[in-house]
Amino acid sequence: MGRDDGAGGNDAYGRKAFKRSKAHFADRITADGRDGWPVEAGRYRLVVSRACPWASRALVSRRLLGLEDALSLAVADPVQDDRSWRFTLDPDGRDPVLGIRYLSEAYDRREADYPGGVSVPAIVDVPSGKLVTNDYQRITLDFATEWTELHRDGAPDLYPAARRDEIDSMTEDVFQDVNNGVYRAGFATGQEEYEAACTALFRRLELLARRLEKQRYLVGDTITEADVRLFTTLVRFDAVYHGHFKCNRWKLTENRVLWAYARDLYQTPGFGDTVDFDHIKQHYYRVHTGINPTGIVPLGPDLSGWTTPHHREELGGRPFGDGTAPGPVPAGEEVPARGRP
Amino acid sequence: MGRDDGAGGNDAYGRKAFKRSKAHFADRITADGRDGWPVEAGRYRLVVSRACPWASRALVSRRLLGLEDALSLAVADPVQDDRSWRFTLDPDGRDPVLGIRYLSEAYDRREADYPGGVSVPAIVDVPSGKLVTNDYQRITLDFATEWTELHRDGAPDLYPAARRDEIDSMTEDVFQDVNNGVYRAGFATGQEEYEAACTALFRRLELLARRLEKQRYLVGDTITEADVRLFTTLVRFDAVYHGHFKCNRWKLTENRVLWAYARDLYQTPGFGDTVDFDHIKQHYYRVHTGINPTGIVPLGPDLSGWTTPHHREELGGRPFGDGTAPGPVPAGEEVPARGRP
Repeated sequence: MGRDDGAGGNDAYGRKAFKRSKAHFADRITADGRDGWPVEAGRYRLVVSRACPWASRALVSRRLLGLEDALSLAVADPVQDDRSWRFTLDPDGRDPVLGIRYLSEAYDRREADYPGGVSVPAIVDVPSGKLVTNDYQRITLDFATEWTELHRDGAPDLYPAARRDEIDSMTEDVFQDVNNGVYRAGFATGQEEYEAACTALFRRLELLARRLEKQRYLVGDTITEADVRLFTTLVRFDAVYHGHFKCNRWKLTENRVLWAYARDLYQTPGFGDTVDFDHIKQHYYRVHTGINPTGIVPLGPDLSGWTTPHHREELGGRPFGDGTAPGPVPAGEEVPARGRP
Repeated sequence: MGRDDGAGGNDAYGRKAFKRSKAHFADRITADGRDGWPVEAGRYRLVVSRACPWASRALVSRRLLGLEDALSLAVADPVQDDRSWRFTLDPDGRDPVLGIRYLSEAYDRREADYPGGVSVPAIVDVPSGKLVTNDYQRITLDFATEWTELHRDGAPDLYPAARRDEIDSMTEDVFQDVNNGVYRAGFATGQEEYEAACTALFRRLELLARRLEKQRYLVGDTITEADVRLFTTLVRFDAVYHGHFKCNRWKLTENRVLWAYARDLYQTPGFGDTVDFDHIKQHYYRVHTGINPTGIVPLGPDLSGWTTPHHREELGGRPFGDGTAPGPVPAGEEVPARGRP
């Protein structure tokens, strides 16, 4: 979630060891509306930063499932200020649907003087302007299982009932060692803490590479939630985690299997078309002044490899199962050229 | 020279743009002794840090030319304290030949209350304990041309008279864009300054790669001073410049030609046997707190590739010209296992 990415730059430094906070607002938007928030086309707005790996899960799932028409999108500036995520990319610095300048305003409408951090992904109820949920671990699972009536024709099943135990176990390992592992390495305040995180990260990546050597996707023979969650970390690996977070035993481009796996997903509609490398680099290097005091954003890495052939189709697999690939990115949601390879 | 590597960590930050100081003590040790310092076996002591690329030129030249018996060696701790380079690796923290704890003591003997920085490489006159020279641009040229009577049998000609213009021109370009270019990128205080340095660096590296595609060495068909100077930057590239100095368009391992060229030299006696990757990483990451406030030293990169086949011998070339390779590293000067791939 985009909060610990560091609003103000140094949030993660007050603690002895980096700990990711639990999401604070955990209401769910469900088919039966049991928390008071029924699934409904046009009612909610998804707020993301394209820099944030946790928010990017929701971006990918929304595309794969074809929820773009049902759930509109607000993209925050990749660089927060001291009031956190803001809509400075929009005309007059205001989200055109919610009418707010800062995401914190939706938090405040939900709970006055809310003392916690402001994070993305966030889903806001448009009529009331209130935040509904910022539960980054839950949002995509609910997209897959609760928003089904609004899925596009041919939407894949990203969380198939028969595979949930396997997916849950995989995503838990990936969360601990990879998704959150890069942050534990990057925000470590001591050598031992860093080394433990970095060692666990690369041990897990080696295990994943072994698994993916002979199978195209992490669980079963189709794309699932597990792939979405691994992808959003891998796509940032060389751009920010390798140097900025010192996860530098090797670059993703140097690991034959994971690099081909990541390119395969990147080139699959719904994945790469959500990725803005410029937002990613601007955010990490400019916001975390505690580990990059100059705020200088590196020119590298060379991104041209992302669009090269990966040959993973030779492994078989059915990317969308019995479904089909999503159509083109909706007008107005295209990633600008400077953010693409 | 090891001074701007940052005694105290932030030396390079007081200036608008990073400027490398001229060496202060420029006396020369010559065959005719015209500066009062004649070439003489056993009289001088070379003080280096194995972390420092400028000092490492002298380490390599001394090995290639077989000057180890004539010119003894002191290796400083890779991490300076507020009194700069120190002999904390030696018993009782004192250089056993000079009897001093800090290199600055030899500077002080040469000039009381010398106000400038203390840098390596430094050559000290053992009888008087005085610094003779810290002229990093000159020292290796004098090893090649003034210390000839003390060269080993079969020593190569690293600065052949017929090629000096070409070598000088090459080393000047390499100095500006590569040797010093990585520092200009790493110590830049603004985005533009960084981008100019990083762009010039990679442009030069691409040109060098094109040149080295079909010839084994930079100038002529033998190893020269030009190769020594390029090598000491390339060998540090992935370990420190890529991440710590943001020179990250690509890793050296990703450039086929330069990676093979660097490995070829690394595996040539006199080059790789002087390199301590542990000293390199400890120095850069722990000393430059202005760009790495936590002082955490990364676990990567994986160094195992340095000893893999490079196939550059297929290009021909005569590494030592009419001479021969140097013998083994003298006892007591071996790089510890933790500093090797």
